[in-house]
Amino acid sequence: MRWAEGFIAADWGTTNRRAYLIGADGRCAEEMEDAKGVLSVRSGGFGAAVAEIRERLGDKPLLLAGMVGSNRGWVEAPYVPCPAGIEEIAGALAWPEERTAIVPGVSFREGDDADVMRGEETQILGALAAGLIPPDALVCHPGTHNKWVRLEGLRITRFTTVMTGELFNLLKEHSILADQLSGPSEPNGSFERGVRKALGGAAITSELFTIRAKFALGDSTADGSSYASGLLIGADIGAGLALGEPEARPILIGRPDLTRLYAAALKIAGREATELDGEEAFLAGARRIVELIDERS
Amino acid sequence: MRWAEGFIAADWGTTNRRAYLIGADGRCAEEMEDAKGVLSVRSGGFGAAVAEIRERLGDKPLLLAGMVGSNRGWVEAPYVPCPAGIEEIAGALAWPEERTAIVPGVSFREGDDADVMRGEETQILGALAAGLIPPDALVCHPGTHNKWVRLEGLRITRFTTVMTGELFNLLKEHSILADQLSGPSEPNGSFERGVRKALGGAAITSELFTIRAKFALGDSTADGSSYASGLLIGADIGAGLALGEPEARPILIGRPDLTRLYAAALKIAGREATELDGEEAFLAGARRIVELIDERS
Repeated sequence: MRWAEGFIAADWGTTNRRAYLIGADGRCAEEMEDAKGVLSVRSGGFGAAVAEIRERLGDKPLLLAGMVGSNRGWVEAPYVPCPAGIEEIAGALAWPEERTAIVPGVSFREGDDADVMRGEETQILGALAAGLIPPDALVCHPGTHNKWVRLEGLRITRFTTVMTGELFNLLKEHSILADQLSGPSEPNGSFERGVRKALGGAAITSELFTIRAKFALGDSTADGSSYASGLLIGADIGAGLALGEPEARPILIGRPDLTRLYAAALKIAGREATELDGEEAFLAGARRIVELIDERS
Repeated sequence: MRWAEGFIAADWGTTNRRAYLIGADGRCAEEMEDAKGVLSVRSGGFGAAVAEIRERLGDKPLLLAGMVGSNRGWVEAPYVPCPAGIEEIAGALAWPEERTAIVPGVSFREGDDADVMRGEETQILGALAAGLIPPDALVCHPGTHNKWVRLEGLRITRFTTVMTGELFNLLKEHSILADQLSGPSEPNGSFERGVRKALGGAAITSELFTIRAKFALGDSTADGSSYASGLLIGADIGAGLALGEPEARPILIGRPDLTRLYAAALKIAGREATELDGEEAFLAGARRIVELIDERS
């Protein structure tokens, strides 16, 4: 059996999963998405949850990436330490069944610093394998937990996670600012003001409260969400740019609605960025890992 | 009727309230506390909620401070703009009934900056009136929304709010770090590491995730809560100290368990602080406002 003749690749996260049937031509023939994230599958229920994917997309070899390989997932695929390239990743797959492989995450340690990723490595190393980004680059992958990744010689050599997406959601859902953050986040003037404040070193834990204060004083807070996004993303890119060379052109990989906001923030910081679609990068990564599986079998 | 012959002072916040019966000697003769915060009282229910206080502590004049004077409270006592001293506060009381007064909050505006406080002014100006702090000082009032307050010539001239307490609670209750933040926050080595990271300019939205990464990599995270507190409080004092003169000795007013952590963080930043109990400061403020009510009647 050669995987490349037809396989399914699934990006299986904490709250949802997306699976793609890839034909012998390397193209996506069919796809599915549902809310059956790792947290919604009971222990012992992964076999059935995987069978559902094959029922929908066909009885093919299956490559899984994301939190499905964590200790809350199906079978743990231990983190591959940096420096990690796609060869190292493909060499450390976990095999819960004969025709099913799980992609491991990547870890970083240096002194007191530590970080982990799970899922983003497939997209980032996939984009590299497809030649969409240079072998040495600074990559930003926005999401619940944004990853800033340093690539050197086709490998992930270090990275840092920023909890921007999760903090924004916590503020929006549970904080005293909730009512003022109900609108959309747009790269407008308020967003720019937030980015500049954060890049200038202002404490975002302090600046955020001005949104509430303005509301209490009767000002319009229609742009509260954009300002809060600007503050959080400004602090985020401030931390992330420190990871790359000063002249590096950052590569943004992820959901277009998020990469758009990060590109706008980077522009305010004087940096042009390249935006890549996360789905395309994921499929490139899955195809390359499958090639490596076939080469080694 | 002279209020100073006997009155009740109540600090009525969002989630709970505390009331004190003050005798003619200025001492607290009796007190009560319950969870009947402003958010738990229905519109139209404040008359009855106030009657309960008098039933418990006596049929006396009643001075209310805190969120009870907000637009979610009983009767709105509009913010007094900076510069605001205790005379301005006492001159802007709201009177929902003949023998009941509500203390107004304080607001600050300058350019695009805005801030509000409600409740802390009584403690801070009370400590000033009682001579517990000098007429020009930098005050820090830790809590859900920490206030850093600049005092000049016995008045609040500017202040800034830092959402440290609320953010810590959001992370502890709803975030991916929840399990790692279940322990106590202590001024230990992890706390110091967090304070130094934040004071050194590290992005706390990034540093916080190391707690999760270490857990995923099998390290002990028993001190996660202390590290997170150190990061948040470090960023907080970094923002707050900028408000005062470089040589100012900050005055900490509030709950002793919180002022202790802030004093430890300030010491790491090379600043000795003075700690004052918030309850004592509140009673001093209430007594002074009541004197001013009597003088003016």
